[in-house]
Amino acid sequence: MNIKILTLFDDYFDSPFSTGIIGNCINHDIVNVDIVNLREYGTGNYKKCDDYPYGGGPGLIMTADLFNRYYENNPKKSDDYTVLFSPTGTVFNQAKAKELSMKDNITFILGHYEGIDSRVETTYADESISIGDYVLSGGEAASIVVVDAICRYKGGLGNENSLIDDTFEEGTNGLLEYEQYTRPLEINNLKVPSVLLSGDHKKIREFRRIQSLIRTFTYRQDLFVKVDITKKDIFAIYDYLAKKSNNNS
Amino acid sequence: MNIKILTLFDDYFDSPFSTGIIGNCINHDIVNVDIVNLREYGTGNYKKCDDYPYGGGPGLIMTADLFNRYYENNPKKSDDYTVLFSPTGTVFNQAKAKELSMKDNITFILGHYEGIDSRVETTYADESISIGDYVLSGGEAASIVVVDAICRYKGGLGNENSLIDDTFEEGTNGLLEYEQYTRPLEINNLKVPSVLLSGDHKKIREFRRIQSLIRTFTYRQDLFVKVDITKKDIFAIYDYLAKKSNNNS
Repeated sequence: MNIKILTLFDDYFDSPFSTGIIGNCINHDIVNVDIVNLREYGTGNYKKCDDYPYGGGPGLIMTADLFNRYYENNPKKSDDYTVLFSPTGTVFNQAKAKELSMKDNITFILGHYEGIDSRVETTYADESISIGDYVLSGGEAASIVVVDAICRYKGGLGNENSLIDDTFEEGTNGLLEYEQYTRPLEINNLKVPSVLLSGDHKKIREFRRIQSLIRTFTYRQDLFVKVDITKKDIFAIYDYLAKKSNNNS
Repeated sequence: MNIKILTLFDDYFDSPFSTGIIGNCINHDIVNVDIVNLREYGTGNYKKCDDYPYGGGPGLIMTADLFNRYYENNPKKSDDYTVLFSPTGTVFNQAKAKELSMKDNITFILGHYEGIDSRVETTYADESISIGDYVLSGGEAASIVVVDAICRYKGGLGNENSLIDDTFEEGTNGLLEYEQYTRPLEINNLKVPSVLLSGDHKKIREFRRIQSLIRTFTYRQDLFVKVDITKKDIFAIYDYLAKKSNNNS
């Protein structure tokens, strides 16, 4: 998989791309990353890349001309899927991460300052993406997030099963992940739930599903309403809450 | 403002924290960032920080013991607001960025691998945050996103007005931002909308509001339903669409 990143801050990526899961994928030639310094395509002695917005307003806008000059020297290939980061794009999620991980060639266009002349999106982008309902100083941090999420599908995890139980993954049916515990059995006056020690895999699976259901209901009702709940789930939740209330009284 | 980051990948942050808006805030002593390598608090010759999950399942879980050892050496201060990154946390947004930017001391706890023993959250976190409905290999990329969003409020932009017109900011009343254009007037057969050249600030404001309304309605109906729309807005949208359909016919 080839990932190209068009940015004004090409040295932003040195450390995150040389460690952890992304570094792992790059070092094993699973993912090839090409960081393009757009500043090289700027005009004049100062390599100007931006200009004032028409109609007024604060800040500077990256010019369409800058991207034309880049693409004149590096024509867009037909199988190159081009994603522009913008707070007004469609919201990135796990399904989109999986979808992008199956592309052979992706180019990410990163805005900075007040954004990019809107004609760049019209001319060059196949899709605009936002990683959440907040504004960043540029697309750099957003692109690291998306490349990380993609690399999890490219074998960077070392354990394919790790994907299955993830929050938002299909294995969890859209529920938040259950709570995790590791050694020791008791710490800070908090014990590991005894069922996890039972060795009864069916009971453990049921317990984790109830935990996922309750966590999702408590923290993310927007996700909960989309989940298929069985009658058995409802009895299990009732049972769990009844036991908990007995313990507390 | 003091930001502390507890991580197993302390060299992840070198380049993103020395450039752009975050680098700017750090260089001007507006934000002080302290990256703590949790590995130093691991046990044994291999500085072990994680262990297998109780109840089975793939991957490794960061131990509660690791964090106890860190906090024994570095007691938590009462005014230190501690945020744990987790896909099951509350969803980060612009209001949360603003809220966090007003804290004096924040500690970010970053998970890695399959996550953190859930008793760490219970014992040390004031809040859990997720930056979106997707899973990352760890909290590192997420923390860069949040620190970037915070730094935009700390004067890192160089232009305070830049905040006001942002998507998700109060000035836009929850609408997506309007399209931006800069020089030249025509490029790739696409012209700048003539109203932006009129110098009529009232008309420009109205045009941008209609653009924001139409973009939000088209791409993010979940945001659109939360926005207060006036009768005047509806007439303006109708007028805009009518003109557009005349031009097309």
